[in-house]
Amino acid sequence: MAKVGIMGAGSWGTAISWLLTNNGHEVTVWSIDAREVEMLDQEREHKTKLPGVRLQDTIRFTNVIDQAIQGRDFVVLAVPSPFTRSTAQKMRPYVSDRQILVNVAKGIEETTLMTLSEQIEEEIPQADVAVLSGPSHAEEVGKGLPTTCVVGARTRKTAEYLQKAFMSEVFRVYTSPDIRGIELGGSLKNVIALAAGIADGLGYGDNTKAALITRGIAEIARLGVRMGGKIETFTGLTGIGDLIVTCASVHSRNRRAGYLIGQGRTMQEAMDEVKMVVEGVYSAKAAKRLALQYQVSMPIVEQVNAVLFEGKSAAEAVKELMLRDRKDEHGALPWDNEVSDTK
Amino acid sequence: MAKVGIMGAGSWGTAISWLLTNNGHEVTVWSIDAREVEMLDQEREHKTKLPGVRLQDTIRFTNVIDQAIQGRDFVVLAVPSPFTRSTAQKMRPYVSDRQILVNVAKGIEETTLMTLSEQIEEEIPQADVAVLSGPSHAEEVGKGLPTTCVVGARTRKTAEYLQKAFMSEVFRVYTSPDIRGIELGGSLKNVIALAAGIADGLGYGDNTKAALITRGIAEIARLGVRMGGKIETFTGLTGIGDLIVTCASVHSRNRRAGYLIGQGRTMQEAMDEVKMVVEGVYSAKAAKRLALQYQVSMPIVEQVNAVLFEGKSAAEAVKELMLRDRKDEHGALPWDNEVSDTK
Repeated sequence: MAKVGIMGAGSWGTAISWLLTNNGHEVTVWSIDAREVEMLDQEREHKTKLPGVRLQDTIRFTNVIDQAIQGRDFVVLAVPSPFTRSTAQKMRPYVSDRQILVNVAKGIEETTLMTLSEQIEEEIPQADVAVLSGPSHAEEVGKGLPTTCVVGARTRKTAEYLQKAFMSEVFRVYTSPDIRGIELGGSLKNVIALAAGIADGLGYGDNTKAALITRGIAEIARLGVRMGGKIETFTGLTGIGDLIVTCASVHSRNRRAGYLIGQGRTMQEAMDEVKMVVEGVYSAKAAKRLALQYQVSMPIVEQVNAVLFEGKSAAEAVKELMLRDRKDEHGALPWDNEVSDTK
Repeated sequence: MAKVGIMGAGSWGTAISWLLTNNGHEVTVWSIDAREVEMLDQEREHKTKLPGVRLQDTIRFTNVIDQAIQGRDFVVLAVPSPFTRSTAQKMRPYVSDRQILVNVAKGIEETTLMTLSEQIEEEIPQADVAVLSGPSHAEEVGKGLPTTCVVGARTRKTAEYLQKAFMSEVFRVYTSPDIRGIELGGSLKNVIALAAGIADGLGYGDNTKAALITRGIAEIARLGVRMGGKIETFTGLTGIGDLIVTCASVHSRNRRAGYLIGQGRTMQEAMDEVKMVVEGVYSAKAAKRLALQYQVSMPIVEQVNAVLFEGKSAAEAVKELMLRDRKDEHGALPWDNEVSDTK
């Protein structure tokens, strides 16, 4: 049994507090919002963020940040990506040397192009930073539906410690040393989810969507490997697995915004209608800059940017993707009889 | 413009005849069923197999096998996998030296464990055998919805020739030398589709399905690579791409049969209700034998076999998959500080 702190009481933070309490841990949840803390303490259910999940009586809710950090065996960061850096700054004074912090949000900082764990490590250099990612809608985790995730950490010891803490009959956890690959896959997938939504909005079918997902993860992997991630990670649960869940979901804001654009709305109209931050719009910009910086071909990212920011029609973008130069599926595979072929 | 023969007038053969005619080729379709030939010639629509697709007047339909082979620049084999060998035997006398045959069906022969192209090559040794595969529901291709596929061939020349013949604004074709990987991915995917269906039938969600798809392709790739396929193929359109389409489809017989089993039917009840051949049931057996022969761990294939043939309950099988030993996601990735880790 471990003492755990959880920063953030959104849908994912709430689902994780329920999950870890089920596993026998002692959980304290911090929220910046005093009214949310009071509501959760009294109602024991987050009716807007995770309706239907009864939160156990032993979970403590607090508005005082050090109560969720000091003396905790590990702390889960579950705040939205735009608030990761500022939350880490607030946490810093209370984090002990080599205390384990597990980040579960995804994103790339627009100005610095840093991943979230890099930001946390910059702000809290004494911490042992790990990540948890994978195909895991919070609503389904909260219902106890079978789910798989990956813990990425700097040492096997930390990874296996967290694996044991999170794992249950319905929550299977794998370990990995590839924090970078895990974070890049999780952030960049939203651009492809936008593209998948656009295809749905244009009235295209499962063939088109499967092609976008498959070729999408291929270009994410090309970039990610150039940036130091491992190819196995992009073909795993935190790469293609998470991308599949996002592109299939009717709840995904990214897919929804893409759908509206595919139906003919402008980016601004789509964002106004979705009424929440559409992560993929920012990731699309970041991905384009990274592709340029690392000299990697990313045709889907390119077309998504053209549709979002250059007024290109979605149908025209798809047509261009279909008619690019005829290619090998994987340029690197050898043709056995390349030389002797006299047919 | 090429002269093309197509063997078989099922949904995929019919969609391909429409596609190739659109691309300007001269197409002759052979069917073993004289009444089907007459019906297609008169009605110009396959109302049961591909409703709503108007077949062009220039397409010729014939019951005489050599008319679809002799003098044809290439011949497409689109007969169901149990009839591939017998059809190849009938074709053999009419196939000229190095004539190109493109197989578009998928399967592994239960008795020999041979792929379809291996059977064709055995029966028609003079042929130049290629394959076409990818995420491509025939109904969507027949509606002109954007679709991607891969041509696998022994020589780059044949692959590029076929790529050019099939490619259009709505049908993007890649090339690959990895015939074996393409065929293994296409055949083994149906076992995973059964598992995905079982999960749906148990009432599980998108998290579970994404996990099964991702870990499913990982175990297919483990076997496929051991058998000589290339890892890139299993992470590409004919591997994960085709698997995604099959697991998402409400039309897939394999997914449907799995769904019924997940709801509590026996395998026989499920097959009776689906009323058609459920490929995955045979592939499951073949996959289990191959896993044993090549000494590869395939936990999902194992559990599917236990549910199908040993009366294990579906819920119990999922529970076992979730609670297997805690693992690295990819055993091969190194932990940088494995030695120096003194934390």
